[in-house]
Amino acid sequence: AKLLQFKAQLGGDEGKHVFVLKTAKGTRDYNPKQMAIREKVFNIIISCFKRHGAETIDTPVFELKETLTGKYGEDSKLIYDLKDQGGELLSLRYDLTVPFARYLAMNKITNIKRYHIAKVYRRDNPAMTRGRYREFYQCDFDIAGQYDAMIPDAECLKIVYEILNELDLGDFHIKVNDRRILDGMFAVCGVPDEKFRTICSTVDKLDKMAWEDVKKEMVNEKGLSEDVANRIGEYVSMQGGQDLAEQLLQDPKLSQNKQACAGLTDMKLLFSYLELFQVTDKVVFDLSLARGLDYYTGVIYEAILSQTIPAPAEQNGADEAAVSVGSVAGGGRYDGLVGMFDPKGRKVPCVGVSIGIERIFSIMEQKAETSSEKVRTTETQVLVASAQKNLLEERLKLTSELWNTGIKAEVLYKKNPKLLSQLQHCEETGIPLVAILGEQELKDGVVKLRNVASREEVRLISDQNH
Amino acid sequence: AKLLQFKAQLGGDEGKHVFVLKTAKGTRDYNPKQMAIREKVFNIIISCFKRHGAETIDTPVFELKETLTGKYGEDSKLIYDLKDQGGELLSLRYDLTVPFARYLAMNKITNIKRYHIAKVYRRDNPAMTRGRYREFYQCDFDIAGQYDAMIPDAECLKIVYEILNELDLGDFHIKVNDRRILDGMFAVCGVPDEKFRTICSTVDKLDKMAWEDVKKEMVNEKGLSEDVANRIGEYVSMQGGQDLAEQLLQDPKLSQNKQACAGLTDMKLLFSYLELFQVTDKVVFDLSLARGLDYYTGVIYEAILSQTIPAPAEQNGADEAAVSVGSVAGGGRYDGLVGMFDPKGRKVPCVGVSIGIERIFSIMEQKAETSSEKVRTTETQVLVASAQKNLLEERLKLTSELWNTGIKAEVLYKKNPKLLSQLQHCEETGIPLVAILGEQELKDGVVKLRNVASREEVRLISDQNH
Repeated sequence: AKLLQFKAQLGGDEGKHVFVLKTAKGTRDYNPKQMAIREKVFNIIISCFKRHGAETIDTPVFELKETLTGKYGEDSKLIYDLKDQGGELLSLRYDLTVPFARYLAMNKITNIKRYHIAKVYRRDNPAMTRGRYREFYQCDFDIAGQYDAMIPDAECLKIVYEILNELDLGDFHIKVNDRRILDGMFAVCGVPDEKFRTICSTVDKLDKMAWEDVKKEMVNEKGLSEDVANRIGEYVSMQGGQDLAEQLLQDPKLSQNKQACAGLTDMKLLFSYLELFQVTDKVVFDLSLARGLDYYTGVIYEAILSQTIPAPAEQNGADEAAVSVGSVAGGGRYDGLVGMFDPKGRKVPCVGVSIGIERIFSIMEQKAETSSEKVRTTETQVLVASAQKNLLEERLKLTSELWNTGIKAEVLYKKNPKLLSQLQHCEETGIPLVAILGEQELKDGVVKLRNVASREEVRLISDQNH
Repeated sequence: AKLLQFKAQLGGDEGKHVFVLKTAKGTRDYNPKQMAIREKVFNIIISCFKRHGAETIDTPVFELKETLTGKYGEDSKLIYDLKDQGGELLSLRYDLTVPFARYLAMNKITNIKRYHIAKVYRRDNPAMTRGRYREFYQCDFDIAGQYDAMIPDAECLKIVYEILNELDLGDFHIKVNDRRILDGMFAVCGVPDEKFRTICSTVDKLDKMAWEDVKKEMVNEKGLSEDVANRIGEYVSMQGGQDLAEQLLQDPKLSQNKQACAGLTDMKLLFSYLELFQVTDKVVFDLSLARGLDYYTGVIYEAILSQTIPAPAEQNGADEAAVSVGSVAGGGRYDGLVGMFDPKGRKVPCVGVSIGIERIFSIMEQKAETSSEKVRTTETQVLVASAQKNLLEERLKLTSELWNTGIKAEVLYKKNPKLLSQLQHCEETGIPLVAILGEQELKDGVVKLRNVASREEVRLISDQNH
């Protein structure tokens, strides 16, 4: 909606080439105000990652096409390919997890704790007012290595908790489940093996669809019997904590399934660590959480903000009146992915989390718009000004000296700017101080320094002529 | 050379599909050590941009193909196009200047001082040991707006000077010229109007080729007469400062050319401002500087490091023994570019500079390798360890408390790690402190804190049970 999409007729005749001045579909520019907010959000996230001892890496924006092939299941159709211009076939990265796994296998790294903040690309249907873009940032934190069960997994959840707390976005909760529990559940409900993944995708829609509709999809589209679907329905309505894990370990059917038992035992252990990390007040063991991606093998999680975003003014359509922000972070364990890249299939167990920063930006931007505090887009401390004419040289010289001592300073690029326009520049951009040069001050060897807001003035002895 | 390019035979038969584990041609991953250096370099550059009062923006990695069309002259063939997957035709950005101009026109912005640090893409012949990649960072600073002559231009040069000084890369100099002086010079030498741009490209090669070879290209390939080429040869050998500008304003031929006079008068003014900014010791007015891009309209400049890089060990080939780093920054004035995007052709005068960060990374990485000081890739202040078994819960609890108070802390993800391996982790990653938990300390309510390097120990009263 913010895109200015006017058309400039370059040719004379109608129907001739029309040049559209816009960014590509589903993408946006960040203006200075948005960048200031983005910097603030990144600082909070990066501080948290560093507090947890993470290193950082970077990978190219495109990968060999075959590196991405077979990693995303049905979502593969959303990958951006580059044109074949001779040479290799390339695709834009779809997430940061697959490039990370490729990096580990290529460099034979068996343990690392790293974060990676970068843009990823999906040819999805954009919904930009809800913060859904085709080019968007991911902030990933992952722990790779053979470690004792659930300790790194618990740290990932602790990190989500810390970041969402510090960003101060209101109440949130983190759903947790395990792929092995899901698979075990499908098995004991009577889902045929080959349908696990596709039924998993259907269960994943429970956050947007009612159970009745999910059930219909299972029966009518995926060919499950009513009975089987009903049995799944009972399980996926369950929510709890450590107690639920214990209860399900006693479940006559689930307790017979090896996969489910392994998942439930780990879930109990996870909650005991979360207790030590003091984060159990926000974490819910939820059997309906499925997550779409194919590569997860163990624990999975997703953080959801309770808050709804009011619809932006431009938007019309009643059903858009207030939308749930939904998931702002998600992740899980993927122990098989690195092995897919290793020529000998050597596995490196991994667990990680990805913060979905665009939705967070949307909320922060709306907060900033309604706040009385003005967002500064520069850090300039002082403007070097003059009240009289013909003092450009003196202004430039003083500004240069301020720069040389590390002071953030600006000067207007005019020979003889009016004092009023110099003061206006300070007020518009939030520069707190103005150094005003005049003939008399130069003679006396002083600089007049004025506080823009309070108009208080002090005279400082100038270094200029020393 | 650092790419591990092993091949994994996925099929059984030879000649079948071979999966190559590598990054795309001309690109590289950044490992944690390289990222630590990159962060340091970016901090210096961003601090400088902020000291000069710049805001920052960001634009998408791809633009509509037609946004880039007709902006880069002969270099257009190096643009990466995306595959046509239905919808718009897109290309990866080739630089940050054209997206900046598109941004200004689209948002009708007539004045801004902004920086933009992002990756750009060129399907060039990579020379990675010399820091030439197909995906590389640019750090751009630009001033857009209608201002008095040469004041913003001088600030751009001041910025290059400050950044190269602070990066501490050894001696450097900045060549300055003006497109109008070049055009005037071509005119008075007898170059036909339609050959200005192509002769400009040939002059641009003088930093890599001897005059004799440049002359041959002018005469044999571009069809100039010997006489005309010789006259150009006389001018392009000239170097100096403000004095040279004054001298050329007296030149019987050049002084008759309006373009040249305007350029020379501005050059004089520029040097007077550079004098006030105390940077003339590194700036040379050099008539051989041409710069390839089509969009420059006034002053142009390029910063060159004097240092040569020794050839990396892997490299063989005698002529690669020591290569000049060459240009590490460049830019100039482009008053017509924004108008190309505006439907009414409204112009926004711009001047800017782009720091070529990859070559700087190469130098810094080599410096780090030969330095005795180890580059840390994490900022962890303390490792929470134990000497005895069965203290995992206590370790996790203390670590969590440290995180909650903002201390950067790590804990090994093992139930019962050996003290030695915990201390080794500190030494390998440079963690300065280790908190050692033991039964006795827990009973006494204290924590033993050891300085890893000096082995000094202190006991602190623990908050754990309060």
